[in-house]
Order: sequence, then C-alpha cells, then structure tokens
Amino acid sequence: MKKLKVGIIGFGTVGTGVFKVLQNYKEITVKKIAVKNLNKKRNIENFDEKLLTNNAFEIANDPEIDVIIEVAGGVNPTFDILKTAINNGKHIVTANKELLAKKGSELFQIAKEKNVVILYEAAVAGGIPIIMPVKTILCANKISKIAAILNGTTNYILTKMHEQNLSYETALKQAQELGYAETDPTGDVEGFDAAYKISILSTISFNKKVSIDKIYREGITKITAQDIKSAAELGYRIKLIAMGQVLENGKIDVRVHPMLVAKKHLLAKVNNATNSIMLTGYPVGDLILTGPGAGSEPTASSVVGDLLVLASELEYSNAPLPQSICHHDEIADQIEIGETFNEYYISINASNNPGAIGIIGTICGKNNINISTIMQKGVKDDNTAEIVVITEKSKESDVQNALKELLQSDSIKNIDNLLRVMN
Amino acid sequence: MKKLKVGIIGFGTVGTGVFKVLQNYKEITVKKIAVKNLNKKRNIENFDEKLLTNNAFEIANDPEIDVIIEVAGGVNPTFDILKTAINNGKHIVTANKELLAKKGSELFQIAKEKNVVILYEAAVAGGIPIIMPVKTILCANKISKIAAILNGTTNYILTKMHEQNLSYETALKQAQELGYAETDPTGDVEGFDAAYKISILSTISFNKKVSIDKIYREGITKITAQDIKSAAELGYRIKLIAMGQVLENGKIDVRVHPMLVAKKHLLAKVNNATNSIMLTGYPVGDLILTGPGAGSEPTASSVVGDLLVLASELEYSNAPLPQSICHHDEIADQIEIGETFNEYYISINASNNPGAIGIIGTICGKNNINISTIMQKGVKDDNTAEIVVITEKSKESDVQNALKELLQSDSIKNIDNLLRVMN
Repeated sequence: MKKLKVGIIGFGTVGTGVFKVLQNYKEITVKKIAVKNLNKKRNIENFDEKLLTNNAFEIANDPEIDVIIEVAGGVNPTFDILKTAINNGKHIVTANKELLAKKGSELFQIAKEKNVVILYEAAVAGGIPIIMPVKTILCANKISKIAAILNGTTNYILTKMHEQNLSYETALKQAQELGYAETDPTGDVEGFDAAYKISILSTISFNKKVSIDKIYREGITKITAQDIKSAAELGYRIKLIAMGQVLENGKIDVRVHPMLVAKKHLLAKVNNATNSIMLTGYPVGDLILTGPGAGSEPTASSVVGDLLVLASELEYSNAPLPQSICHHDEIADQIEIGETFNEYYISINASNNPGAIGIIGTICGKNNINISTIMQKGVKDDNTAEIVVITEKSKESDVQNALKELLQSDSIKNIDNLLRVMN
Repeated sequence: MKKLKVGIIGFGTVGTGVFKVLQNYKEITVKKIAVKNLNKKRNIENFDEKLLTNNAFEIANDPEIDVIIEVAGGVNPTFDILKTAINNGKHIVTANKELLAKKGSELFQIAKEKNVVILYEAAVAGGIPIIMPVKTILCANKISKIAAILNGTTNYILTKMHEQNLSYETALKQAQELGYAETDPTGDVEGFDAAYKISILSTISFNKKVSIDKIYREGITKITAQDIKSAAELGYRIKLIAMGQVLENGKIDVRVHPMLVAKKHLLAKVNNATNSIMLTGYPVGDLILTGPGAGSEPTASSVVGDLLVLASELEYSNAPLPQSICHHDEIADQIEIGETFNEYYISINASNNPGAIGIIGTICGKNNINISTIMQKGVKDDNTAEIVVITEKSKESDVQNALKELLQSDSIKNIDNLLRVMN
C-alpha cells in the first residue's frame, strides 16, 4: 500500500467516523481537516486540534496532500474546492451524491485530463458495495434494470406507517425525533436524495450519462395510512423505489416514486432504514444487495475502502484503474414519465351510487386500460365510497387522461392517489 | 484493456457459457479449449473445432497463452494442470471451489513466487459479487461473521419440502429430474460443496487460512417433512447454512449444517436455487447479498468479470492488485463443534406417558440447558408422542451429553433430530 497524505473536508458524523477508522492504517496520514466551526467540541480521543482549518482551499492547494476525502456535502462551495484540488492533481474520494449528480460530468472530465480518479462508493447506498462491483467484477454484464430502495429515511417512515398504522405526519415526526429524518426533510421525503443516487448508479450501470434533470421524481408525502392499508390488503407494501431500465428501443427510463411492491418481492421485505438494490444483468441474472444505506460507520466503510483500494493501486501504477473499466461518455436518451408503461394503483373517492364503478370501468376501457382488481372500501360518513383500482400494464399518458376524464364525471369526487405497482 | 490470449479448461455448461460471453471482447482471444471428448457435439454457432484439445497440459505449457480459465472442476488432474500453468507464469481464473478448498494454499504460494494471480469470484456463490468486494471495497472492515446459503441444490430441495409438504426423498427426486441435483447428489446434499465455499470465503473474510478438514459438516438428508412442519409452526424455515464467525477469544468457528432460521430473517426468505450471503463487519454493519449461485450464465459473469479486471490491470502494471489487498498467511485456530454455543431444536420420540416431559426438563436442566419452548405433537399409533424442544443458547457438548442421557431413559424412544437455530 502506498503511503498517502489525506485531507478531509467536512467533519460531522461521517467525517469523524472516517477519521476514526483511518487511525488503524499507518500508511494513511490525515494532514488537515476542513471544518465550518473551529471552536466546536469534537468527540474524539487524543485529537490534535491543530489539524483543523476553516479554509478548505488550504487543503485543495496543499502540495503535500495526495487525496481529498470530501464528506461535507452540497454543491457550493464544494464544487469549487474539489475542482481546485483536481486541478492540483489530487485524487478525490467523496460521498457527495448531490454534487456528482449535478456536476459529476464536469468533475470527471477535469479528472480525466489531470489523470486523477474520483471514487464515490459512499455516495450510493452507504455501506452496500455497488459502485466498485458494477465497475469491476460485474463489468462483463449488460445491466438492463435497477430497482432500489436508496433512501433510508423514507423507508423508515413507510415501515412505521405500515407496522403501526401511522399517518405520514406522525411517522415523519417519530423519524425526526429519532434522528432518521432532518428538521427540513424535503431532500429525503420528496425523493431528491434517491434521484441523485439513481442518476449516478444508472449512469455507471447503463454506461450512458443519465441526467438528473430528466429523472421523474415523486416523494412519499401524499401516501396516506389508508393507502398503506389498502395496499396491504391487496398483498403489497408501499416503498419509495428508485428505478432505471433500458428499454428495447435503447431509450432509458429512470425515475423515483413510491410503488406498491408485491409482498413476496425481496424488496418488499427490506424494512426500516435499510437500503437494497436489485440489479438485473446479462449474464448474471438478478442480484439483490441489501445493507445500511447511511450512517457514520457504513459510510466510513465505503470511504476508507475506496481510499485503501486507491493506495494499493498507486503503489504499482500511476494509472489507477477500478474506476476506469467502464466509461460513460454517451448521453442517455431518457424518456418522460408519460411514455412509461406500468401497472397502477388508483385510489378514487366516488359518490356512493351504483353507477360509479361502471363509470370507472368505461373510462378506463376507453383509454386502453385493463382493470385487474377493483375493490370498494365501504361507505364514508359523507356518503362517498373509497374505490381502489389495480390496472394491468398501461401507458402512463393513457392513465393520466383517464384520471382527467374521471374527474369530469359527477360520480367521481376525487382521485386520492395514483401509485405504480411492482410485482 | 490489455490484449490477452486465453486457454479454457473444461467445456461443459459453464465453459460454453464463458466462451459465448468472451465473443463480445475483441481484446480477448480464446486460443485453446481442453475437453475430455473431442467428438462430442458442441451447441455453439460458428465454432472452430480446431480450438479443441484433449490434452490440458498443452494449454498449461503453451507459451502464447496468458491466462487459464479453469471450469473443469475436481482436484485430479486439475491441480497438476494449474500448477504447471502457474509455474509457466500464467494467471488463473477458476470456478473450482473443491480445488481451492483442498489445495488453495499450495497454489497461492506458487502463484506468489511466480508473480501471477489466481482469481476465483465464480468459486463462491456463482454470480454474486463477494470475493472481489471483500478484497477491495470492503477491505477496511473487520469481518466478524458470515451466515450464508451457498448451495442452490439443497436450498431448492428444502424450499420444495416446505412449499409442497414433500419428503426429502421426493423433493430430491424432483430436483434431479429438473437438473438441479446430480445423479449422485452427495457433494450437495451432504454439505461438501457448501463447506468448500465457506472455507474459501471465511479465509478471505477473517484473513486467516481456514482449513476445510476442520469444518464441521452436516447435510440435509436427515431432515423430515415433520421437521419442516414443526419448524414452520414455531415460526422458522429450515435452511442449509454455511457459517463462519470470529469468537471473542480470537478463535474461529466455521461450519455447515441445516438450521431453523426465523421466518423474519432475510435468509429465511431466500428460496429455490438462490444463494445469499449475510456478512457482518465493522464498520459496515450487516450486508446481505443475494443472487444466482450456480448455472452457466451467472458463473460466466464472474469468470469473465475476473478476466476483464485482470486485463485492465495488466494494461498498466505487471503487479495486478485486487487479489492482494488482503493476505491470509496466518492459520485460523478453528474450534470443534462441541465447543460451539447455539440455540437448538430437538425432536424427541417419547412414550406417551405423563413423565416424559418432566424427564426431558430434568435432564436438560442438569446439563445447563434452558428450554425456551416445548411442544407435544399429538400421539402416534404406536402410543408414542413427538415432542419438540427449542433451547436457549447452550454449549453443544452439553446438548450432546443431555441427548445421551435422554436415550438411557425408558420414556425416550429416540432422538429424531437435532438442529441448530438462528434467530
């Protein structure tokens, strides 16, 4: 292993975890750590406060530092700091999914010119080994599909809603109290975090640059306790699924939204904050990799893993390789959500009259939608009925048209929810 | 990627699968293929029969061949062939778990002297990426425990016994008819195959040479339909589990035997011929990797993956690295089964008299065994009763002593089965 001098940017939970694990490796010297607040109390034994700086550019410009470990997150000022570091010939190990999703292409381009590497195992699914396996031991595969639970916060909330019949709001509050969700939970519950991750993972899996701007994204804030219950009665769990697939015409379908996942599917059995990735490739078939998707220690496993692989490679060669086996210069031709085909769960609030089910059937039929299950859930105090429909595979734009038509009918009060289904 | 000339040894299902996938890579030339029978009809398009030889040493001694892909299996004559090839400076990619378990140390030693590598992703869990991840991206971890389903044949048989209430014999016969089990199923059903794999996996995970000769091994041939049923009633599935763990005193506990796995455990949900590996490490926590453990295509994924990684590494350096990040020169101090601690399922055939349960309780107590569940399963025609006991964590030698004592009692007719339990 080559002796390396390292600078760490960001010294919160993850940075501290990485620093602690690095103490076990005499070949790795942490030379400097960039923090926001120099005076904050650090919970580490025998820690030399002189390592700290509040100027990250000091690290990016330090000629002695070989590798930057970036665990600060965000795009500003992180992008400028890493760009400076790469231009100075430093290798990067980062856990920053947002930065890679938004500015990865630019950073990878400069890194290529400067002959340095950017490793980012920790940016997707925390401790689960996925980036390096896809780039190395799985590289003989043509990966055609990914379906994954990539956000621990939302999986925790959905699990609690299911297990304890909680509303979204109550489950979110519990998750916040336990530290699983942030005070402003938007990044998690609206699916941004999962979208960053699936953009990175589908890019390396399909060998085409998948643009974050073209990923359809829908969060879990509209899922009700009633949806969870109806789904369970129909044999499903609701999960926030990040998915990507290569269609027969070569176009790419990447999106993040809640789905009804059949109870028997292994992804339906992944609970609490655990992450899981199902990957379908040829010749390998279906793989499912499950583990902790966040947290100080699992993230440190991936960050330090990247760093040690780099140190081993650099001992023998100046052209470190694991990241370069698969390229992704080509731009993915991403389709819009309207063009996708799915099975659907539609929860409809209808007048309690005998015509409602007929109207639903007629309008669905007119729009090329075959219904596979229809279930009326009793009658409410306001004399409306909750009707749940599961469709066969249909085109999203047809379903959207049908919903608009349904809303024009006097018998249909509201479309309470539209969710996609995975069997 | 470096251009490589390859020789393939073994051209059955796996060898053919590998050959087909290699057609996609212009950098890889298959120069020769060693087979047993030159005249066998091969089901491959545009296949040049001149590639075939029935003398594998021709490949091992061919100065133009850079890498040997060995998918023939067995120890003789494969060991001599690979030894010759390594001595001739060739790299090896192999799927041969038996050879590595029995003769791996010797081959690795010669490979080290000759500065060549032996890659063997396909030897453990077929298409699931586990060997390279443990050696690379997970190498910052101290792995303390592995619990895995590593044999597809036995998992298929146990799944069918559970789902269709079949006897072991009937399920085996079905598996043989479908090609999941061989005519002589000993290697699978007696746990040899799983033992080879766990010896390899625990060696690289614990960084100590685990000896196949010291692995306790027990197959599934004694599992009855009644065991499966009792286990299900108690909330368990029976699985053939290959496990390894590092104990607090640094000793290593590696074994293969059927276990009652709690229904909620993700390993209990892995059915049919699928394999799954649960790995516990610090700092990563628990990972579960699930996928196809055998078959032509998944095995080809791992074999060709190893080869492509090697080709990429060799382009820049003559010291290829992924295999060398973790060493295992130290010998593991393996404990015997009698020294292990487990929860147990004991199925007892007792006289139908009121004293039997009392005797079981007394003898267990005397031997330091706490019973957590005891269940009598009705009375049979011969006026005996089937009693099922689940114990708290107990020492195996204590349990074995208790069973001997039980058999000396007039009330106890037989110990029908003793299985260990994983919660």
